[in-house]
Amino acid sequence: MSAFDVIAFDADDTLWQNERLYVHVQGQFKALLSRYHAPDWVGERLYATEMRNLQHYGYGAKAFALSMIETAVELTEGRIAGRDVQVLIDLVKNMLTAEVELLEHVAETIPRLAGAYPLMLITKGDLRDQESKIARSGLADHFSRVEIVSDKRPETYAALLKRHGIAPARFLMVGNSLRSDVLPVLAIGGSAVHVPCAHTWVHEVAEAPPDGHPGYHHVEHLGLLPALLAGVEAQQGGGEPGRP
Amino acid sequence: MSAFDVIAFDADDTLWQNERLYVHVQGQFKALLSRYHAPDWVGERLYATEMRNLQHYGYGAKAFALSMIETAVELTEGRIAGRDVQVLIDLVKNMLTAEVELLEHVAETIPRLAGAYPLMLITKGDLRDQESKIARSGLADHFSRVEIVSDKRPETYAALLKRHGIAPARFLMVGNSLRSDVLPVLAIGGSAVHVPCAHTWVHEVAEAPPDGHPGYHHVEHLGLLPALLAGVEAQQGGGEPGRP
Repeated sequence: MSAFDVIAFDADDTLWQNERLYVHVQGQFKALLSRYHAPDWVGERLYATEMRNLQHYGYGAKAFALSMIETAVELTEGRIAGRDVQVLIDLVKNMLTAEVELLEHVAETIPRLAGAYPLMLITKGDLRDQESKIARSGLADHFSRVEIVSDKRPETYAALLKRHGIAPARFLMVGNSLRSDVLPVLAIGGSAVHVPCAHTWVHEVAEAPPDGHPGYHHVEHLGLLPALLAGVEAQQGGGEPGRP
Repeated sequence: MSAFDVIAFDADDTLWQNERLYVHVQGQFKALLSRYHAPDWVGERLYATEMRNLQHYGYGAKAFALSMIETAVELTEGRIAGRDVQVLIDLVKNMLTAEVELLEHVAETIPRLAGAYPLMLITKGDLRDQESKIARSGLADHFSRVEIVSDKRPETYAALLKRHGIAPARFLMVGNSLRSDVLPVLAIGGSAVHVPCAHTWVHEVAEAPPDGHPGYHHVEHLGLLPALLAGVEAQQGGGEPGRP
């Protein structure tokens, strides 16, 4: 018996580029407001607006658009021009239709793992935006289950696993966000693999679990995941026969 | 055996007021632009923008906000003031936190039916917004399953029923939208009850199925649903014993 019934993957910045698009648009946002304020200050104010709006808007590109517009109105004391507001809307529309660019090693690793385990996709954000990205990624057929959630807290994972009849001890989550993909899964007794991404939103940053935490693994990129899994399986499978 | 394994309900404008909030905000939007254009024209342009953006944004209040802002920029040729843009954002934030007002007969009918059938909620729109409304409605405990979808096409229902292991012939959907709640369910061989709502978005309007279409029912309000169901059950249950 293999160690896991299901391996689940985060999508944005685990399977494909996402934060990089946000960083790019933020750069253009700062440039647009550069005659009013210093870029760093604009960035700080935008992040503060996003955090304030999170409870109402949730995650995703539409929420980001509305927070940029609100910040622009605030930082220009209402002097932002209508055509600049439209520039912001168009930037976000471009994000929503941008090509889905897979991260390195993803295109080979996902089909390979799909031959060995049932795979699941668990992503948070805008329903329509995430569905569209999954379809455009070309990876949809490798995932037997897809869950788009509004947040990734321990309760979210617990409810989701219960609904699918998966025991937490038999569940492995793979993702770039310690805060959303790793810590809540460990908290409910599951296993998690952290795969860092060059671009990770500051909101998703958290402390790694202490070394030796059961269930916690780390690989530098997704191409190393099959070897990690082989090691976990060998350890589990190899340990059993020798026992009384 | 009862006629249905599951009874599913639409949420917005079936269980609680929704379109009325949009109509109210649209009224304020038209007033805001009244020194530029006639209200009817503003309404027409807004609807055209919403339809154009639907493929990118999907349904819901954030999409509505972005479409209002875009229409305002367009109709004022960029002269919309920043503070008026913020007025639009604030109107939508108010929608997102407004009290969830149950429609007539819902508060008595849903608990009563929940005692007789497993109930399901199937709603489209923003993930966060819909989750928040379900929680605030006070009805969540009566629904054993909740599905938030990005659209309600026949394929959406077919996939959803397959995932839950429900045969279309044993599925009944109840909702105010002929386009989203009734026609696609009939198309896959399910049953549907149309419950009209005083406010229904023009996008959701469609022709009713012809009289006598199998599986199609209509009640004037949700309070009449238990009697309709009793009739359907009696017809099915009562018809059987007399047959050879």
